[in-house]
Amino acid sequence: MAGTIKGEAELIGTYLAPLADSHAGALGLKDDCATFVPRAGFDLVLTTDAVAEGVHFFSDDAPEDIGWKALAVNVSDLAAKAAEPRIYQMALSFPDAPSHDFMSRLAKGLAEAQAAFGITLSGGDTDRRPGPITITITAIGEVPARCMPARMGAQAGDRLFVSGTIGDSALGLRLRRADADVSRWALTDAERAALLQRYLRPAPRLDLRDGLLRWASASMDLSDGLAKDLCRLAAASGLSAEIEEGRLPLSPAVRKVVAADAAAFGSVLGGGDDYEVLFAVPSVRAGELAAWAEARGTRLTEIGALTVGGNVMIRSEDGSSRPLAPQGWDHF
Amino acid sequence: MAGTIKGEAELIGTYLAPLADSHAGALGLKDDCATFVPRAGFDLVLTTDAVAEGVHFFSDDAPEDIGWKALAVNVSDLAAKAAEPRIYQMALSFPDAPSHDFMSRLAKGLAEAQAAFGITLSGGDTDRRPGPITITITAIGEVPARCMPARMGAQAGDRLFVSGTIGDSALGLRLRRADADVSRWALTDAERAALLQRYLRPAPRLDLRDGLLRWASASMDLSDGLAKDLCRLAAASGLSAEIEEGRLPLSPAVRKVVAADAAAFGSVLGGGDDYEVLFAVPSVRAGELAAWAEARGTRLTEIGALTVGGNVMIRSEDGSSRPLAPQGWDHF
Repeated sequence: MAGTIKGEAELIGTYLAPLADSHAGALGLKDDCATFVPRAGFDLVLTTDAVAEGVHFFSDDAPEDIGWKALAVNVSDLAAKAAEPRIYQMALSFPDAPSHDFMSRLAKGLAEAQAAFGITLSGGDTDRRPGPITITITAIGEVPARCMPARMGAQAGDRLFVSGTIGDSALGLRLRRADADVSRWALTDAERAALLQRYLRPAPRLDLRDGLLRWASASMDLSDGLAKDLCRLAAASGLSAEIEEGRLPLSPAVRKVVAADAAAFGSVLGGGDDYEVLFAVPSVRAGELAAWAEARGTRLTEIGALTVGGNVMIRSEDGSSRPLAPQGWDHF
Repeated sequence: MAGTIKGEAELIGTYLAPLADSHAGALGLKDDCATFVPRAGFDLVLTTDAVAEGVHFFSDDAPEDIGWKALAVNVSDLAAKAAEPRIYQMALSFPDAPSHDFMSRLAKGLAEAQAAFGITLSGGDTDRRPGPITITITAIGEVPARCMPARMGAQAGDRLFVSGTIGDSALGLRLRRADADVSRWALTDAERAALLQRYLRPAPRLDLRDGLLRWASASMDLSDGLAKDLCRLAAASGLSAEIEEGRLPLSPAVRKVVAADAAAFGSVLGGGDDYEVLFAVPSVRAGELAAWAEARGTRLTEIGALTVGGNVMIRSEDGSSRPLAPQGWDHF
């Protein structure tokens, strides 16, 4: 359909209501409120994240990717808390009435993300105002009562694990921006595509749920860069940390970039948007976790340990240590 | 404290964390997620509304009023659904780092609203991006299982009730904008203050909860004007409606304005921001409701009834009827 949306009723009825089809409590998005029936024995886990054009995504990103990412960054927080995603509320704002093309593609990306993460739209708000297109989501999941792993709660000596690989998304962003240095990286098309995919379509680590519930003493998702988020995780328990540079899980593409451009390692540690899970496990249980991950084919890497006092340190492969500065994104 | 906020940690720690003090599951706003323990036997009720500078509030509105209103417009939706407010998630966005003065006053207004409505901040998101200051809230309440009055569910013949008085806020907005016509209204300072107060500090009708649970066959809050919202309420049940102009509950100030400026009646019906509750009650139960309201000193007015087919009509005091056009706010 060509042209722009005419009226909230069309926007909601045509593009948003189908996303809420499978949640009866959404009442077809025809009511002022939604209902949700909590399951006995579970706590709710809530998180809110907004993404805005020009800040969190580019104006010419594919609308499908924008929709996916808006939901994924929220579900990543639930994943790090071992919560099963259930419903989300979404506030959309546009400076001008969006086109049918944009809305149908945005809704397609949201629908793909819903199917992948097992979450459903329950309600929200749409409005028009100046400024960037913004998608603000509050996602709600469920976790067995009193079992949510917090940021705090770890003990000195607990081992630090990270899921997947880090830095791919930060380098993907630099490819997306076509930074000057990027030409030196000499990546193949497949490597470029892999890094871009990690930036555009982050995949929340929902497969860690059982492991986190059983073994994590503290857990958070990596959204603002390993350096900053590790400092936060340690500080939440009143601790410090030491990690080993040589143990950081890097994809082949990231290894290739860092080999060609050592300065890019700063992006790997501080660039953010990883949407992996960083968590601590009591030292005596680390073996059980590793065996569990191995048996399931889940990539988890032990990168270091929580320590008492001092700076958060990173040890190089030559054995020297340096403080890991809490670089990373801050809006203010 | 003079100057602007430095960093997210200061913004959250100094101004937002105190708002979350009484909800243990907010974890001091130091975690990525909040938890909430639902009560057995209750359903959750969720609503999301955003307010933006220049669209929903003025740049020079008192920050205390902005904070109050951002929360009140959400809680009003819960009130119309007979839900007891519990927690809210809040996403704040600023084009520039806010001043300490602005944030302390915004937080003061939010704290006043929290105390008045019995709701607590549980978590959220803060970011900086171009465009207007925006406050996006998802509020969550609880209602006895399967008891939430929906927009739909009414029967032809059900009587229509509205709480409080309508039009005050729409005229308050016109005073706030200093529209040209306003000089003709010849209001006293007290009358002006009363109308402005209704616009700046809407008071959700949380005292209707028991009455709505017992008698409402359909219910919604009035946010986009009686004309538009009545058409929505009727349409949700596949019905039409007829209301009596002479029965509409108007405050003395609104009566005075309409007497001086008949055209202002359009604002009363279509201006919005009333945050009263419009609901339907089976005809045979209307007397019980009226007695309940009378005994509690709660102002409720029967304004008409739901009917079968045709246009939603408003009957003048001279006995003539005209269609009530669904004028009112639409963002798109």
